[in-house]
Amino acid sequence: MKLYHAWLSSASRRVRLTLAEKNIEYESIPLDLSAGDQHKPEYVAINPYGVVPTLQLDDGRVIYEASFICEYLDDKVPEPRLRPTDPYQLAKTRIFMRFIDERMLPHLIVLNWSIGLQPMASKWSDQQLEERLANIPTPERREAWSRIARNPYTDEEKSQALAGLLTLVDMVDDMLASSPWVIDGQFSIADIAALVFVTRAEELAPALVQKRPRVVAWLKSIRERPSYAKAKITSFVGGAAARVEKRKL
Amino acid sequence: MKLYHAWLSSASRRVRLTLAEKNIEYESIPLDLSAGDQHKPEYVAINPYGVVPTLQLDDGRVIYEASFICEYLDDKVPEPRLRPTDPYQLAKTRIFMRFIDERMLPHLIVLNWSIGLQPMASKWSDQQLEERLANIPTPERREAWSRIARNPYTDEEKSQALAGLLTLVDMVDDMLASSPWVIDGQFSIADIAALVFVTRAEELAPALVQKRPRVVAWLKSIRERPSYAKAKITSFVGGAAARVEKRKL
Repeated sequence: MKLYHAWLSSASRRVRLTLAEKNIEYESIPLDLSAGDQHKPEYVAINPYGVVPTLQLDDGRVIYEASFICEYLDDKVPEPRLRPTDPYQLAKTRIFMRFIDERMLPHLIVLNWSIGLQPMASKWSDQQLEERLANIPTPERREAWSRIARNPYTDEEKSQALAGLLTLVDMVDDMLASSPWVIDGQFSIADIAALVFVTRAEELAPALVQKRPRVVAWLKSIRERPSYAKAKITSFVGGAAARVEKRKL
Repeated sequence: MKLYHAWLSSASRRVRLTLAEKNIEYESIPLDLSAGDQHKPEYVAINPYGVVPTLQLDDGRVIYEASFICEYLDDKVPEPRLRPTDPYQLAKTRIFMRFIDERMLPHLIVLNWSIGLQPMASKWSDQQLEERLANIPTPERREAWSRIARNPYTDEEKSQALAGLLTLVDMVDDMLASSPWVIDGQFSIADIAALVFVTRAEELAPALVQKRPRVVAWLKSIRERPSYAKAKITSFVGGAAARVEKRKL
């Protein structure tokens, strides 16, 4: 199978971690998001939202939406199981992952895009911007790119986004009070989803994360798993990400 | 178990149909959405988004998000199975339900709320409105209630919403070209989700739906199932909904 992804994308990181946990071999196809690879017609043909990641099976069929790619991998390759078997805990896993998708991901757009994409997008001519926007298939992403190119997120918006992201740290801390993992009973794709976001919170507000010993221990235990190195969760800080091998779509 | 729901809510209808398909007995607790039952602190304590439906188990634990309540019911009571077993088809089921949740439900807010809620909300004093908004836990729903009370959706917005909803009718039509059900192989919670939205599209634009014989046949076959009568999918048209038994939270 092939994974179309981006090294710094939170959703891509979740899928890379899940693939690594399950020891599934795949062809890595990193997209250059600043070049707009994800909006090219040949990519939108396999991912109608024009976002990463997309998993493409050997017969050409595709699966998108990180949460559902992770569930697919767990359905397809049952061992090691990465979701609870109890129906209620399984529902909690899904509800928590959707909370992250719907309520936390928008904060990361505000916090991350200014770093990686704004320096380049702000230099586009009006015509270049118009061409870029015309290729973006969803209104919310057109709006986000338009903001990045012409009307960057303000310090107030960034600080609200950080405050929003930090609510997840508190939530994870609460969840870890009764279990070593966010969903009772076992390490799951919910831990993987949360890890990616808490990792970014830690980069942005290290002191606040360090104050929560349960969260610190949980982060450490996940980072010691062999999957973590394999999935290449490179830091946003210090430009390490730029050194990861890139390949054009 | 108890189901907190509303008779006309699309998400509630999906869960009632799923419960009926599985012959699961439950206590029905209909909320009065115009009275703001769903924003009362005792309800927000079980559903942090302040929306219907919520399924409450006999031990008090709760599950929300219609798609995941339906998956829970299918995990908990395996027969009759309402999701494919093939991992790829299962992923398709989930991707399609999320498309409906994220991309179609906002159209129904524009199309439906003006009917049931605006006549009452428009009469609120500024202070009443402020009190109502203060109880609503999510920004997108605060915005929707604020629109309904003071700045009703325009005809242009309504016609865009209808156009958006009708894209689902075309999508369902395409899906039915190769299978009697929207996801290959079997009647599923994806059909249930789609039915609820296509039913509303049919009420709003009957001629456009009637032009698609596959969709008409699919609607008919679902409506002939015993679950349909049991789930009380009353019409928005003609005020029939108002006659359904109501009970206060």
